[in-house]
Amino acid sequence: MTDWIAVDWGTSQLRVWGMTGTGTVTFRKTSEAGMNGLPQDGFEPALIDLVGDDMPMAETPVIVCGMAGSRQAWAEADYAAVPCVAPGLDRATAVQTQDKRLSVHILPGVKQASPADVMRGEETQISGFLTLNPKFAGIICLPGTHTKWVHISAGEIVSFRTFMTGELFALLSDRSVLRHTVSGDGWDWDAFTDAVSTAMSNTSDLAARLFSIRAEGILNDLDAKTARARLSGLLIGSELAAARPYWLGQHVALIGDDALCKAYADALGAQGLPVERTDADRMTLEGLKAAYAGLKATTS
Amino acid sequence: MTDWIAVDWGTSQLRVWGMTGTGTVTFRKTSEAGMNGLPQDGFEPALIDLVGDDMPMAETPVIVCGMAGSRQAWAEADYAAVPCVAPGLDRATAVQTQDKRLSVHILPGVKQASPADVMRGEETQISGFLTLNPKFAGIICLPGTHTKWVHISAGEIVSFRTFMTGELFALLSDRSVLRHTVSGDGWDWDAFTDAVSTAMSNTSDLAARLFSIRAEGILNDLDAKTARARLSGLLIGSELAAARPYWLGQHVALIGDDALCKAYADALGAQGLPVERTDADRMTLEGLKAAYAGLKATTS
Repeated sequence: MTDWIAVDWGTSQLRVWGMTGTGTVTFRKTSEAGMNGLPQDGFEPALIDLVGDDMPMAETPVIVCGMAGSRQAWAEADYAAVPCVAPGLDRATAVQTQDKRLSVHILPGVKQASPADVMRGEETQISGFLTLNPKFAGIICLPGTHTKWVHISAGEIVSFRTFMTGELFALLSDRSVLRHTVSGDGWDWDAFTDAVSTAMSNTSDLAARLFSIRAEGILNDLDAKTARARLSGLLIGSELAAARPYWLGQHVALIGDDALCKAYADALGAQGLPVERTDADRMTLEGLKAAYAGLKATTS
Repeated sequence: MTDWIAVDWGTSQLRVWGMTGTGTVTFRKTSEAGMNGLPQDGFEPALIDLVGDDMPMAETPVIVCGMAGSRQAWAEADYAAVPCVAPGLDRATAVQTQDKRLSVHILPGVKQASPADVMRGEETQISGFLTLNPKFAGIICLPGTHTKWVHISAGEIVSFRTFMTGELFALLSDRSVLRHTVSGDGWDWDAFTDAVSTAMSNTSDLAARLFSIRAEGILNDLDAKTARARLSGLLIGSELAAARPYWLGQHVALIGDDALCKAYADALGAQGLPVERTDADRMTLEGLKAAYAGLKATTS
């Protein structure tokens, strides 16, 4: 029986889990109803639509993390300032809904004043990871559209830095002059690791090395999978060079998409750094469960 | 009376000039029929359409520079390899046309084997600049979608390097998460020059500084014109750091769009480097006239 609903509402995806009070999953569903495509009054119907017949008849807590809490989304949720633990339900935003079966709480994000930075959703994955690894101290890297490097100490998020690496890769491979040269889904691991090293040893000429991919396509018929891997390697290598103060000599855990985490693990491995890979979905759900435990603690 | 037609066929624009044999302009016209939107059989009609009633009745030389010569465009033109002078009509591609009034020659581009690089169109502007400044030795910088830094010695293009800076700015300001933060056309010169210095002194963390623009928009309501100028300054500053071997202690001439050249001139000026700004349209036309002079020399 479903006692509450866990929701991860990202920019381009909505994921829900039906949960029992003891943490068993009763259903899991995913849709493309991400935050980006929804007007403010579209969130509640999108959620009800996705849960469908699995919606309990009684009033049900719905605990939400991610971009649904950003300004101009469902309802603006707060940001906790670093250093802090991942903020819980005591700072969540309660949303008034039409459907009285829903008792919606949107979890806060985390912010940093200098360098200015924000996260929404990753703090919940971090909370899940720390629930499973309560003594962890070191660095959590969350590769994605906006990759985060997060310094964890004594169970707190101490500082973090976001890199637009994933979004740059998407823009360059889908919409720039390079799209002709990097088309397809192929991959070339040697080209990737070479490009990571190149970018790490000379970080300034990224914009020129990018154009060289196009020029090699024209002049030397550079293979598309080599070009694609090189583009990724140049971008990730630049990021690793800048993030060196985070990872050098540290214990690093990766949370994110499998293929992308493999790329980061290989790139960091080539620097002699062992990394720990985790199941991102599980971290999200554990984080939402930790928040729900806070609700039970309050109401019991 | 129009003796020949000069054509600059770029990615997004088509520009034509009617010319007398002695170099007087009889008409000038511009359309949005750039290379990007045209199928191979669309080039001739687009040219005839733009020239319109000004098309001479007799067979007329049409001298073309730019992207019309790229593969999959009108007809593929060659590349001359550096070191070289800007290649002339002897290496141009003659295009067979339906309309027998047209005698079309597409000028070659210039290529470099290592680092792999190409240009199409800029070599003609360089040729025009060197026609007007035959003793010039130093660096020509051509800011644009794909900014070129070109080393000139003894009238030849010795080497060059292309940076995707302009395209990155367009992608980030129009299509990335930053679009909300940098909207509008405003500008903030102090923010621009600060960002140039920042990026020049630390070139590695560009992807993180970019996301900080978004975070400052969310956390501190960063002004859109400040955000926009900072984005531009970070990208141009990164480029200047990488291009330092080109410009340091050199004589630099800028050829390009006025506003963009002002940004480059200010950024280089802040490094203590005086630069020479030129009229880009005039350089293009002088380059095409120099090519036409080659045709006259051959046929007379």
